[in-house]
Amino acid sequence: MPITRRTLLDAVARLGGAAAVYEALVAWDFLRAPPAMAAPLELAKASGTGRTVAILGAGVAGLCAAYELDRAGYVCTVLEASKRPGGRSLTLRRGDTFQEMGGPVQECRFDEGLWLNAGPGRIPHQHTHLIDYCRRFGVALQPYIFASRANLFHSGTLGNGRTMQVRRAYYDLQGQIAELLDKCVVKPDMDLPISRDDLATFRDMLARFGDLTKIEHDGKIEYVYRNRFGRAGYDVLPGGADEAGRPVSPMALDEILRSNVWNDYMFREHEFFWQTSLLEPVGGMDNFFKGFLRQPARSGGTIARLVRTNAKVTALDIAADSVTVSYWQDGKPRTLAADFCISTIPAPIFATLKTNLPAAYMSAAEKLPVQAAGKVGWQAERFWETRDQIYGGISWTTDPITQVWYPSSGFLGRKGVLTGAYMYGVSAERFNAQTLAERLRQAEEQGDKLHDGYSTYVERGLAIGWNNMEFERMGWADEGDPAFAPNAKLLSEPQGRFHMAGDQLTYWSGWQEGALISAHAAVSSIDRMTKAPANR
Amino acid sequence: MPITRRTLLDAVARLGGAAAVYEALVAWDFLRAPPAMAAPLELAKASGTGRTVAILGAGVAGLCAAYELDRAGYVCTVLEASKRPGGRSLTLRRGDTFQEMGGPVQECRFDEGLWLNAGPGRIPHQHTHLIDYCRRFGVALQPYIFASRANLFHSGTLGNGRTMQVRRAYYDLQGQIAELLDKCVVKPDMDLPISRDDLATFRDMLARFGDLTKIEHDGKIEYVYRNRFGRAGYDVLPGGADEAGRPVSPMALDEILRSNVWNDYMFREHEFFWQTSLLEPVGGMDNFFKGFLRQPARSGGTIARLVRTNAKVTALDIAADSVTVSYWQDGKPRTLAADFCISTIPAPIFATLKTNLPAAYMSAAEKLPVQAAGKVGWQAERFWETRDQIYGGISWTTDPITQVWYPSSGFLGRKGVLTGAYMYGVSAERFNAQTLAERLRQAEEQGDKLHDGYSTYVERGLAIGWNNMEFERMGWADEGDPAFAPNAKLLSEPQGRFHMAGDQLTYWSGWQEGALISAHAAVSSIDRMTKAPANR
Ligand SMILES: Cc1cc2nc3c(=O)[nH]c(=O)nc-3n(C[C@H](O)[C@H](O)[C@H](O)COP(=O)(O)OP(=O)(O)OC[C@H]3O[C@@H](n4cnc5c(N)ncnc54)[C@H](O)[C@@H]3O)c2cc1C
Ligand SMILES: Cc1cc2nc3c(=O)[nH]c(=O)nc-3n(C[C@H](O)[C@H](O)[C@H](O)COP(=O)(O)OP(=O)(O)OC[C@H]3O[C@@H](n4cnc5c(N)ncnc54)[C@H](O)[C@@H]3O)c2cc1C
Repeated sequence: MPITRRTLLDAVARLGGAAAVYEALVAWDFLRAPPAMAAPLELAKASGTGRTVAILGAGVAGLCAAYELDRAGYVCTVLEASKRPGGRSLTLRRGDTFQEMGGPVQECRFDEGLWLNAGPGRIPHQHTHLIDYCRRFGVALQPYIFASRANLFHSGTLGNGRTMQVRRAYYDLQGQIAELLDKCVVKPDMDLPISRDDLATFRDMLARFGDLTKIEHDGKIEYVYRNRFGRAGYDVLPGGADEAGRPVSPMALDEILRSNVWNDYMFREHEFFWQTSLLEPVGGMDNFFKGFLRQPARSGGTIARLVRTNAKVTALDIAADSVTVSYWQDGKPRTLAADFCISTIPAPIFATLKTNLPAAYMSAAEKLPVQAAGKVGWQAERFWETRDQIYGGISWTTDPITQVWYPSSGFLGRKGVLTGAYMYGVSAERFNAQTLAERLRQAEEQGDKLHDGYSTYVERGLAIGWNNMEFERMGWADEGDPAFAPNAKLLSEPQGRFHMAGDQLTYWSGWQEGALISAHAAVSSIDRMTKAPANR
Repeated sequence: MPITRRTLLDAVARLGGAAAVYEALVAWDFLRAPPAMAAPLELAKASGTGRTVAILGAGVAGLCAAYELDRAGYVCTVLEASKRPGGRSLTLRRGDTFQEMGGPVQECRFDEGLWLNAGPGRIPHQHTHLIDYCRRFGVALQPYIFASRANLFHSGTLGNGRTMQVRRAYYDLQGQIAELLDKCVVKPDMDLPISRDDLATFRDMLARFGDLTKIEHDGKIEYVYRNRFGRAGYDVLPGGADEAGRPVSPMALDEILRSNVWNDYMFREHEFFWQTSLLEPVGGMDNFFKGFLRQPARSGGTIARLVRTNAKVTALDIAADSVTVSYWQDGKPRTLAADFCISTIPAPIFATLKTNLPAAYMSAAEKLPVQAAGKVGWQAERFWETRDQIYGGISWTTDPITQVWYPSSGFLGRKGVLTGAYMYGVSAERFNAQTLAERLRQAEEQGDKLHDGYSTYVERGLAIGWNNMEFERMGWADEGDPAFAPNAKLLSEPQGRFHMAGDQLTYWSGWQEGALISAHAAVSSIDRMTKAPANR
């Protein structure tokens, strides 16, 4: 029986009622998506015919390179050390296993239908290469909520440790800033970048910015912050005709200052790539890279067929017109010779390979500054929705777990997955150095400070330290470090027929978009070499 | 054949590929939702047995009252003047029609699967009554994106009219505020609410708040705003190792001041009920009130069976122990007598009914301040996603259309629905007074100033002026008007066995949550009367 829209919807309705029908309709609508956008990268149709490329690593960068080169006629082989493609893009579902070096095998025991994005979790709207691929491959995207005013801050510093809603600290601070500046600008000796005529407008703007209350006495106008319109929250919510609502009283400025929550957490949402809107693939981040794997390949089958897993590269020999890759598979040493090679192996690992590349190049790989990163994941009943009106977003704490993420989808369902810790840099190194049990214990204990009874809800915990993962050894490159630019630049330069790629070499490091951009750069460079007269 | 999870997913996969499977999984997960939260309103099981209630109006308030009273054993009849239940909650899909007084019949001709929320469109996370009903009824909710930094501002005022991304005005203003305040606080005569010891911390906070750049010269530290970290946007985005990104130069403070975008638009997202996260029912807002209609009723059938449509109430007679309602149906005058009556008829209409209520009461209905509201809707190819990286959120303009909303779901699909205008108060009165054709023309013309070529994309326009709707005559009550409180209070008082309800009598007017709260108040009051010894 061919399934029509109608019969499918009927089936869904029988099984799931109206809610399920709506979801199915959404999915259906998606099917009618337009043909892909103009590809951002267009190599000539058969420019690579007859050329072979060895691609090292089947993360986002490696898979993107394989897909684009295959389309242009190149014959690609992707060597991947681990048992699965995806690299740092790892979504854990029931039955999935992974292992840190020296750690126990961890098996995900979440209920069916739940998942943890153990690596990347969000897609900024500015990441047009990634989003264009999603459009082309039919990878459905939904909103990822980064900021929510109902989320929580916990600060243990300076004695004012207490848990409060983000809105409270956020708007009290905004109000106090506005009030203070208003006091300043009326002083006659203030040097303002606006004309005195515009002063009234400026004060009006400040009053709106900060929710200031206008007070007139003795003909003088003053603006003060009193949380008059309840931005920072209410003791009693507005209600019927006899209850206009009773806003909470503002906290003192120095209480907020000392709490330290402004020190990154509160203002993170303003940074370019965390600005609303953010997106995520429906059903888990791995649905993005799986888009590459699903695409048909020239040789028949799909791009997935080009990938050899459990194939650990150990050495490279770059010659004038070929590259020979040595690797281990099934306990045996093997080699692969190709016209070109792209390595997306993380720099800390690449630096340990045996190669005939210039010493300066290999030392740049060693010196590329990288950061650790760690996450904890739990499943739990959605107590944050029923008790705290939290629908997505992040709670922040000055404790080592740093962040707790709530799911941006599946609202009102029974259970959901919390990212129970997310930290990087030195704090991640420290956190990840502990045993699994100790990390989970801390994540419970520190979660309890955010939500009463947190530890009684969370279950089936997982913890991943990316610097502990044999084939990653890092979260990402640290482009904030002055050593980044010179080393990344050197590593980006083609070495004969060898190219390095990966988010690690871009100013979008720690973002899949960086992996795509670097793959495009390597692929274009190879294509230019192929087309150059000397290679014809 | 009983459909199992596996067979359903297989069917979905055949039809829709991976994306559809994910959606189905999401839906499936939803089915396993927990039993409802504790009901916020619990009347004794059979407290109303044998009592009858006439409910006037089948909007959210009337349907909620019918559902709660029916559960407690009351026998309810809902009289609804229009051809459909829902009242101001109106979601328009292909084939739906509506008509303003004196206007043409408008038929929605959107493609299948698209819809316009012509009335309510979003649910604040604080609206726990509404969300609890959704949980109980299995109404799936998804994120509604209110603010997005990729959205646009257009300002025609003061000669600086130009279209810019929200992030630009927003962060330039935030930066300038921070820089100005920093200049102030270092002055020795400034009276600060923090100790001088905390000053360095305060300045550090300001620098983070505003993305200020620290400059040291002659041992003096100065902080200036230069959009160093690109919050306000980039001329050239970060890229590979040789491109760290080139942030745009800040606009002058007075340019932003004059643009007037801070006058409400920019700061709207900070108001309590517009604070992130916001939600919306999957598939259209009417799925919320339809939750009530679907519930089983005591008398057999569902709550929908209690509703008589095309039943226009004209008069009320309130006696000591009953209420008699006169109404028209099928061209004939009819009456309905009941032990109790709840009217949710909008005050401007209620004031015109013939009743034996006190003159002061009827005059309060007349004097209750209300506001007009208007919307325009279009379908269009999702050019805002492919060209502008806009995924949900609102663009704002000082032109009469005021707002353009982008869909928060169905991303990467082919077409979507834009709310092409949304305004209220005096500007809505003015806009809605124009013909349909003129409103659509203006919406195109003004949309063109936000997006080049807008008018070439949008199609199948609809326009609704809620003050033009025969059975509404308003958008909502205006609780900001000083006349609101006294009149709403009086109207909230039971008049013997008669109660008035509706969001119009609450401090959540313009919100469905207000309709629910007022319905709960009326229902509880009736239940108290029923239980009072005199009524036993
Ligand atoms: C905790 C965390 C959170 C993140 N959050 C986000 C986010 O929200 N959004 C986002 O877009 N990005 C995020 N990222 C970054 C994102 O994961 C990376 O940008 C992207 O996955 C990098 O892809 P890649 O192909 O460059 O590298 P990788 O994914 O690291 O791929 C390298 C591959 O090389 C393989 N390999 C290693 N050694 C060898 C060897 N000797 N031989 C053969 N193969 C080898 C590895 O197994 C791996 O598969 C996050 C990363 C982490 C760790
Ligand atoms: C443009 C717009 C945007 C909005 N946005 C939001 C939003 O984003 N979120 C939100 O929660 N809320 C929003 N609201 C408010 C929301 O629509 C209302 O709070 C809610 O629908 C009110 O329900 P009600 O039952 O009180 O009134 P109504 O829905 O007005 O119900 C009154 C009913 O009485 C009927 N009636 C009128 N006269 C008679 C008569 N003589 N006899 C019998 N029946 C009669 C009417 O037909 C109607 O069905 C919005 C409203 C508008 C207009």
